[in-house]
Amino acid sequence: MRPDGRKPEELRPVRIHRNYLKYAEGSVLIEIGDTKLVCSASVEDKVPPFLKGQEKGWVTAEYSMLPRSTEVRTPRDSTRGRINGRSCEIQRLIGRSLRSVVDLSVLGERTIWVDCDVIQADGGTRTAAITGAFVALVDALRKLKEQEGWERLPVSDYVAAVSVGKVEDSLRLDLCYAEDSRAAVDMNVVMTGDGRFIEVQGTAEGAPFTEEELYDLLSLASAGIRRLVAYQKEVLGNLHE
Amino acid sequence: MRPDGRKPEELRPVRIHRNYLKYAEGSVLIEIGDTKLVCSASVEDKVPPFLKGQEKGWVTAEYSMLPRSTEVRTPRDSTRGRINGRSCEIQRLIGRSLRSVVDLSVLGERTIWVDCDVIQADGGTRTAAITGAFVALVDALRKLKEQEGWERLPVSDYVAAVSVGKVEDSLRLDLCYAEDSRAAVDMNVVMTGDGRFIEVQGTAEGAPFTEEELYDLLSLASAGIRRLVAYQKEVLGNLHE
Amino acid sequence: MRPDGRKPEELRPVRIHRNYLKYAEGSVLIEIGDTKLVCSASVEDKVPPFLKGQEKGWVTAEYSMLPRSTEVRTPRDSTRGRINGRSCEIQRLIGRSLRSVVDLSVLGERTIWVDCDVIQADGGTRTAAITGAFVALVDALRKLKEQEGWERLPVSDYVAAVSVGKVEDSLRLDLCYAEDSRAAVDMNVVMTGDGRFIEVQGTAEGAPFTEEELYDLLSLASAGIRRLVAYQKEVLGNLHE
Amino acid sequence: MRPDGRKPEELRPVRIHRNYLKYAEGSVLIEIGDTKLVCSASVEDKVPPFLKGQEKGWVTAEYSMLPRSTEVRTPRDSTRGRINGRSCEIQRLIGRSLRSVVDLSVLGERTIWVDCDVIQADGGTRTAAITGAFVALVDALRKLKEQEGWERLPVSDYVAAVSVGKVEDSLRLDLCYAEDSRAAVDMNVVMTGDGRFIEVQGTAEGAPFTEEELYDLLSLASAGIRRLVAYQKEVLGNLHE
Amino acid sequence: MRPDGRKPEELRPVRIHRNYLKYAEGSVLIEIGDTKLVCSASVEDKVPPFLKGQEKGWVTAEYSMLPRSTEVRTPRDSTRGRINGRSCEIQRLIGRSLRSVVDLSVLGERTIWVDCDVIQADGGTRTAAITGAFVALVDALRKLKEQEGWERLPVSDYVAAVSVGKVEDSLRLDLCYAEDSRAAVDMNVVMTGDGRFIEVQGTAEGAPFTEEELYDLLSLASAGIRRLVAYQKEVLGNLHE
Amino acid sequence: MRPDGRKPEELRPVRIHRNYLKYAEGSVLIEIGDTKLVCSASVEDKVPPFLKGQEKGWVTAEYSMLPRSTEVRTPRDSTRGRINGRSCEIQRLIGRSLRSVVDLSVLGERTIWVDCDVIQADGGTRTAAITGAFVALVDALRKLKEQEGWERLPVSDYVAAVSVGKVEDSLRLDLCYAEDSRAAVDMNVVMTGDGRFIEVQGTAEGAPFTEEELYDLLSLASAGIRRLVAYQKEVLGNLHE
Repeated sequence: MRPDGRKPEELRPVRIHRNYLKYAEGSVLIEIGDTKLVCSASVEDKVPPFLKGQEKGWVTAEYSMLPRSTEVRTPRDSTRGRINGRSCEIQRLIGRSLRSVVDLSVLGERTIWVDCDVIQADGGTRTAAITGAFVALVDALRKLKEQEGWERLPVSDYVAAVSVGKVEDSLRLDLCYAEDSRAAVDMNVVMTGDGRFIEVQGTAEGAPFTEEELYDLLSLASAGIRRLVAYQKEVLGNLHE
Repeated sequence: MRPDGRKPEELRPVRIHRNYLKYAEGSVLIEIGDTKLVCSASVEDKVPPFLKGQEKGWVTAEYSMLPRSTEVRTPRDSTRGRINGRSCEIQRLIGRSLRSVVDLSVLGERTIWVDCDVIQADGGTRTAAITGAFVALVDALRKLKEQEGWERLPVSDYVAAVSVGKVEDSLRLDLCYAEDSRAAVDMNVVMTGDGRFIEVQGTAEGAPFTEEELYDLLSLASAGIRRLVAYQKEVLGNLHE
Repeated sequence: MRPDGRKPEELRPVRIHRNYLKYAEGSVLIEIGDTKLVCSASVEDKVPPFLKGQEKGWVTAEYSMLPRSTEVRTPRDSTRGRINGRSCEIQRLIGRSLRSVVDLSVLGERTIWVDCDVIQADGGTRTAAITGAFVALVDALRKLKEQEGWERLPVSDYVAAVSVGKVEDSLRLDLCYAEDSRAAVDMNVVMTGDGRFIEVQGTAEGAPFTEEELYDLLSLASAGIRRLVAYQKEVLGNLHE
Repeated sequence: MRPDGRKPEELRPVRIHRNYLKYAEGSVLIEIGDTKLVCSASVEDKVPPFLKGQEKGWVTAEYSMLPRSTEVRTPRDSTRGRINGRSCEIQRLIGRSLRSVVDLSVLGERTIWVDCDVIQADGGTRTAAITGAFVALVDALRKLKEQEGWERLPVSDYVAAVSVGKVEDSLRLDLCYAEDSRAAVDMNVVMTGDGRFIEVQGTAEGAPFTEEELYDLLSLASAGIRRLVAYQKEVLGNLHE
Repeated sequence: MRPDGRKPEELRPVRIHRNYLKYAEGSVLIEIGDTKLVCSASVEDKVPPFLKGQEKGWVTAEYSMLPRSTEVRTPRDSTRGRINGRSCEIQRLIGRSLRSVVDLSVLGERTIWVDCDVIQADGGTRTAAITGAFVALVDALRKLKEQEGWERLPVSDYVAAVSVGKVEDSLRLDLCYAEDSRAAVDMNVVMTGDGRFIEVQGTAEGAPFTEEELYDLLSLASAGIRRLVAYQKEVLGNLHE
Repeated sequence: MRPDGRKPEELRPVRIHRNYLKYAEGSVLIEIGDTKLVCSASVEDKVPPFLKGQEKGWVTAEYSMLPRSTEVRTPRDSTRGRINGRSCEIQRLIGRSLRSVVDLSVLGERTIWVDCDVIQADGGTRTAAITGAFVALVDALRKLKEQEGWERLPVSDYVAAVSVGKVEDSLRLDLCYAEDSRAAVDMNVVMTGDGRFIEVQGTAEGAPFTEEELYDLLSLASAGIRRLVAYQKEVLGNLHE
């Protein structure tokens, strides 16, 4: 039995509140079980130095946790004077995932800053960040589309993500913290609405895992992401209408 | 007329949601108009080096803004690689204000970390932080009282804070951002439940101000804080019952 | 009795040596009792990024203490690898205070850097910094006036500052370190030559203070600042002659 | 055709020089095509704070590139004053991979520091780091085994890693830089000697990839790693003899 | 002719004011021409980690310049967020020079922190720092001798330093800034009272220099240091009386 | 007897492998006994801010040690979050030494970055860095000469460096680590091919040294450098042919 009574292939309840912040071009509060994040998408009219003069835009992400989003208080990066390795890795993943469905050449010399701030962490914060950030990003791009008179939203497909893992010899979808912290295998999967992979990151925390386990985990993730994308569609409507 | 139609001596609507976070010993979401902060109080069983061996505790605060809590996105301190001067100043103010009503010698060798994170900023974030943090702190101390069998809560009085200022030649209570950004005088006042001052910080942003203006601003603040403390009492009940 | 035998409303001896440094456009050594600072004003022909293209100038301050200006050696910020919160707060106060009397639009795209370095600290370093820095600033601006052929010095009034506090139940002017370190109330006041307030920062270090105490402290400060401004006039002569 | 004339499923030439450094407990120079790294394993008789008192050891990795290991010189982290996000991510991967086959409880309160420094980078530096670091680690542990009189080497299996990817619609093993920089899919795979997975990290750089492509890439990687492990066995001999 | 009319082998006027700071165990204001520094020696009752448990002490130095000690304002290290390479080098030189005449085993587990802060820089600040710091150090050690009842001052000889250089084809003693900035050869020499060398650092700024020039510069330096030591003796009296 | 059986005036075996790195404009692996460094010279088409618009170039150096180049592992600067004082000093020395023989006005607005990374440290790393970096620099400048059609290589002479010291009362050339770590006097000397001095840095680690010892050490160094330059000539051929 799972700590919260779910079946192995069951997601926690998901809620996405759009327009959560007053100033941001796009923003959501996403709740997946007890995991809660604020994701915002901010438009800046310039690009990082390595893109200057190339007439295309950029999408970048930052990820951080409030100090008391965690069971034990985590000191702030700004106080510790150094960036957290884990945060680094996660924000690179979020940025890559979102960029894979955005046509950067349509953006012009603009950066979309996606900020994912964890208010409460109960497992799956990085995948919730991607699922929520996608919604905030679409809202921001819809505003830009309006404002710039673009013909189409420069987004090729939905993007959502979920974690899967092996806990006590059973394969499970959407691990909560109590499961994640003792999982033997931990995998994060990012997919598009049409069922293709953007990112697969599987890690043996204890013993290595077999090919068969890998394939079973991937199909568990795939089914979960299908449901998350269905919910994104419900929230956002069709991308190109 | 004020931007949101208030009278000069009128507060914005205030709401404090207790137990906002699952893990923290005390936590609130405080909303004052469109200003929103999460304040949490975390108990750690050790003290900073300068207090070691003195058999007393410490209360310290950290303050930060989510990047898109502001009209224009503010880069993170951790990315800029340096601490923001303004945040520094504010967290020192919050810490001092809370310590002034706590009997640190009762705490034992413990630190209460008070984290104030601004989700949305529409003026008055530092005073809202104090007003909300006080509630989170009391909740954390009540848990400690229970756990340690203290006879009394080691808190001598309520603490709340408000901003006042001079805008377009009128003196006003609880400035929103549109007022704050063009105030000629800006003052933050922190008071106890019995009407005494913990901190008075008045700044001429443009022309200096007279003694009379100072006194009028202080009584405006004093009336506002009385109402905030009344609300804290409603939320928390009597401190010593 | 006060540690140095002064009466409650008595300032320590004040001396300001002008042109203390060979290279700076303006510089002083200010001594208030055993508190000694070097304040310099340096002219730079550019403004910070947020002012570019606005055809006005800027006045900014930095404050630091020599490691052994204090009773116990204080490690350098550069060695500790982080900026001191207290220094941050003080340099923001000095900058704001000086800017409140300078007409920045006359300066052109120039920054005046005001450096206040504490050689010896015996209480009241931040207020001494303001009182001394004002003199260095005027000297630098007089040079610029000469050089640029301005009609008038772009300074509207004198600025000086003093600390007051409540120590052992008596209200006192210009606290030395031995008083400051055990004051129940500590207040820093910055005023103009015509007796108006630029900044009032009052803090209860122990018990909160009453409205009456606040008013008495302010009039003590006001009298002290009147004497400091008189001395600045003696040293600088009339601002507009 | 591949830039260096290889077949899609062909590895570049691999050479591992053991005992490359005079002082390190274990060290190699690993060359895979033009990619060259020095990997060393250093034994320190203490553990990081989070492991204190648990009577087990730790294996941690650091990864860095010489400034001119790359086509265009890369500024040093120490000069830029901040850690590189990519390096962070890679060193976490190396550490996790090695720990997955080491019995930390045998080590006692010791840390093995694994340093992977890239002398020349022509693609696949992170996977070469893992393959080489494993050899350096085994050499260091063999010395400890001798010195401590352990009965067995606390290593459960060989570990090697390789990159695979999709370049110009063909799936290829062991990408060189010219391929890696324009790959549509880029995947790093870490496996044990018995063919199980430790880590799978697949990323769509351009278009997302299908389930079938994922499976084909994994079997390409699996075949490559089998050959790398065979080479490690040749170099190291049997782990438990 | 030299800019200030001196003869090639002439020192600038030197003045050392002892006990310049109220709190430091030893302190001086040293003036050599227009070069002015405050040097202080502070006693701390612990040693750096690398010396723990060895029953000996340490002497270490820090060197910094006030921002406007220089012709053009120099930004502070703490603001720039990184330590200045030149300061680093100088403080290591000062520390080494002083340690070479102190018997560290007598100190016990104590550190003497020597702080050299440049108030005004007109060439030769590092050598003036050594010459002044020696006096501050002796004063601090004399206090410790008294307090600890040591039989002898643990200082084997006087230490002083001077710069020499080749400017416009003439060899000169004690370069001022105008000379230093266009010297072809610049040399700093640290010697003991008995005429032996502690440190010789000669640098060709333009063309390399010959053996003969090196020897001539060393004897110029040696004569200058003899006079500086004579002045130290006058100021401090005999070290062992 | 010396630890490795050499005579006092004997160099360790020296080998310089040119073109060690694939991408760098110039690069060597230099081995002097067990001391090994990679030195590379990289051309960048811009100059540091202080040289902009002056139509001349710059040569700058960076020096670092691999963590396990040393007997005990040295933590990385990037991990410690601060630059090492010793590295700072050494890279300034390397840069100055190389600039003293390069005609910067010929380079145009270009920077040559010289990176010296110590693979294995057995004493004399800074002098080996200079000796090796000179070769890498010449190779890079020869490429530039070709590419730019310069008439002559803008290098006036060879540059090499060596350490000398006093160990157990004997004066010795080219100290290995076992000697260096207990030397009473340690001296680094940089000279040109025609026997003139670029830099002399002599330090008394224990007792001060006499003038005679200084002269004897300098001639020992001078003889050693003559042999190193002979080897550079063999490796590089004549500079101007």
